[in-house]
Amino acid sequence: MNYNDIFARAIDRLHEEGRYRVFIDILRNRGSFPNARCFAGHNGPKPITVWCSNDYLAMGQHPKVVEAMEEALHDVGAGSGGTRNIGGNTHYHIDLEHELADLHGKDGALLFTSGYISNEATLGTLGKLLPNCIIYSDELNHASMIAGIRNSGCEKRVWRHNDLAHLEELLAADDPDAAKLIAFESVYSMDGDVGPIHAICDLAEKYNALTYCDEVHAVGMYGPRGGGISDRDEAAHRITIIEGTLGKAFGVMGGYIAADKNIIDVIRSYAPGFIFTTSLSPVLVAGVLASVRHLKASSVERDAQQAAAAYLKQSFRDAGLPVMDSTTHIVPLMVGDPVRAKKISDILLAEYGVYVQPINFPTVPRGTERLRFTPGPAHDEAMMRELTVALTEIWGRLDLELKKAA
Amino acid sequence: MNYNDIFARAIDRLHEEGRYRVFIDILRNRGSFPNARCFAGHNGPKPITVWCSNDYLAMGQHPKVVEAMEEALHDVGAGSGGTRNIGGNTHYHIDLEHELADLHGKDGALLFTSGYISNEATLGTLGKLLPNCIIYSDELNHASMIAGIRNSGCEKRVWRHNDLAHLEELLAADDPDAAKLIAFESVYSMDGDVGPIHAICDLAEKYNALTYCDEVHAVGMYGPRGGGISDRDEAAHRITIIEGTLGKAFGVMGGYIAADKNIIDVIRSYAPGFIFTTSLSPVLVAGVLASVRHLKASSVERDAQQAAAAYLKQSFRDAGLPVMDSTTHIVPLMVGDPVRAKKISDILLAEYGVYVQPINFPTVPRGTERLRFTPGPAHDEAMMRELTVALTEIWGRLDLELKKAA
Repeated sequence: MNYNDIFARAIDRLHEEGRYRVFIDILRNRGSFPNARCFAGHNGPKPITVWCSNDYLAMGQHPKVVEAMEEALHDVGAGSGGTRNIGGNTHYHIDLEHELADLHGKDGALLFTSGYISNEATLGTLGKLLPNCIIYSDELNHASMIAGIRNSGCEKRVWRHNDLAHLEELLAADDPDAAKLIAFESVYSMDGDVGPIHAICDLAEKYNALTYCDEVHAVGMYGPRGGGISDRDEAAHRITIIEGTLGKAFGVMGGYIAADKNIIDVIRSYAPGFIFTTSLSPVLVAGVLASVRHLKASSVERDAQQAAAAYLKQSFRDAGLPVMDSTTHIVPLMVGDPVRAKKISDILLAEYGVYVQPINFPTVPRGTERLRFTPGPAHDEAMMRELTVALTEIWGRLDLELKKAA
Repeated sequence: MNYNDIFARAIDRLHEEGRYRVFIDILRNRGSFPNARCFAGHNGPKPITVWCSNDYLAMGQHPKVVEAMEEALHDVGAGSGGTRNIGGNTHYHIDLEHELADLHGKDGALLFTSGYISNEATLGTLGKLLPNCIIYSDELNHASMIAGIRNSGCEKRVWRHNDLAHLEELLAADDPDAAKLIAFESVYSMDGDVGPIHAICDLAEKYNALTYCDEVHAVGMYGPRGGGISDRDEAAHRITIIEGTLGKAFGVMGGYIAADKNIIDVIRSYAPGFIFTTSLSPVLVAGVLASVRHLKASSVERDAQQAAAAYLKQSFRDAGLPVMDSTTHIVPLMVGDPVRAKKISDILLAEYGVYVQPINFPTVPRGTERLRFTPGPAHDEAMMRELTVALTEIWGRLDLELKKAA
């Protein structure tokens, strides 16, 4: 047994497939989002523009968020010092859980150290508590949901992405008395399309299934108070469990679920990924509190982001660039090959100071490698026009196809 | 299928067993550790003293840590805005990984959002990369290691706690050519005893096994530079993977592994719990950088903590309180019953302003419920004498046994 050989071969496979990942070394410049510094070169930091951040509304740099974090840092210190049960339950955590429960119109909410672990822990634990539960999972669900479903030990049925007929076919084929859970997302982050929440809830009611909706790419950004697509579509009350993140539109870090009292209590009491971990730093929680409260009251950031996304999509379309059919704030350009996607990204960074990470397997299926742009309120129209010109030039240089505008 | 009934019954079971957890709502007072405010009552916050924090050295309140976090907050903002691969790889992350690799004398290190996920993701992924790997796990390993081992899908052998003969018996019984991994801890957090690192590494060498050592309750606190028990015992070079936390002695939040180059690269490239999650906030990372650098150079905090722990153990012993046989900074008092442990904790909080959380199942085995004290550099001798008097009074009030001092 030569362990080193096995590890070296695992790395070699990534190089051979052209999907070995090189992390770009950056620091953002607070107060001048989306500008940042890149440390990749040899001549000190180079100024760049970030086009692939999930800090969609630039709330991570909002003065209210920064001030709240600074205040907490000076009031209580850096970390929580313990698990939620043993010394790490601060007043900030409790306040934020109330705020998030209110955001989604639920009895309660529960914080996790990340969106990943909120999905993994909640789905894994629910599946263990419900005897012989069957979990129905949209085929494009996030890796963290897939991990939770696998770790639950439940039977799993994968339905074709957003295909309600297929979902119903699977539901109808199973024992009517079996426990059932339908897991899906509201905004699918790599394609930018949206799950049909009401229709899924109709099926859930018909077949007596619980529903679990991952809103990580929607909370803060959709609905009059930023409660996500379920807020916009007035469907939150129909969903059993809404899961969200504090690390994207809310600009900080962490994850959560919102649900009725008993479900929050069982996950709080039984989920290893919640119980056995140091709680979120109160500094982060204070920042999120300010962010959630601001976005409940203000739609300025949401509206500006939607306008920017619409402008960029139109600009790409006009130039004949292969923009994918997104109905949200996410603007993906299909490339279809990992080596080429990385090449375009490398040129953008080296020659144009544009940072957009190539997206490859396992984040998206092989053959659908892409560039994923997330314009926000601070990306202005001139920047988007320049980006379009740069991409058109690179597309020509690499002999890639440009579509004629319709 | 009545879902609500199932959830309600799961909660009822906890109440019946006396282990339904009530989180104490606190805020620590920065600059006057271990003092805090408790929000449990109805008359506003009440001053308390925290005796169960895992911020063992009070680094979460250290001026260098707070200043570094404030500086990062103003320089780059609240969150990282993305995964390590997509926009969330900051210069702070890279610097901290170098610092942690150096701390343990390894090629590299890899940051995770928590110690829990570093264990779960690393063990889960290693077990999948190594064909037919067998994992040998100490019976007192932490829940996050157990989760990772289970999710790896590997065969698992549990050896009796710190029993080297049993470990060797299991190793010798398996195919000599099978891939093997021995997973253990350096400091077992609920008992306060220590794993025999050198002896385990001897067996690993004899049977060609990899070693994985969880040092979360030791990093920052043992060894001349705070590299943990493996630093103190000069054993770090013999361990394949050292896992640590940023949320206990380092005072902030997060987890990491340190290992050779290829192992870091495979975990970085294959572990879903690393790949598919927003990276640690750069504010946290900046704080940890300051903390690790300080504790590499200063032993003042370590020495003061060891002195406090020794003093408290002796004080408990002199009073006949059932202090467990800990060889580390952890001071557990055995109670052996969840209801009684909670009762003692409740009286301490209500009447003495002493906060120590009762530890019950599943954190410790049923029948070994306890109170776990973690005195640090800021708990002075007068406070420890007062605590001993309070516990002696409560022990008498509840008719619990006091041992005669030897």
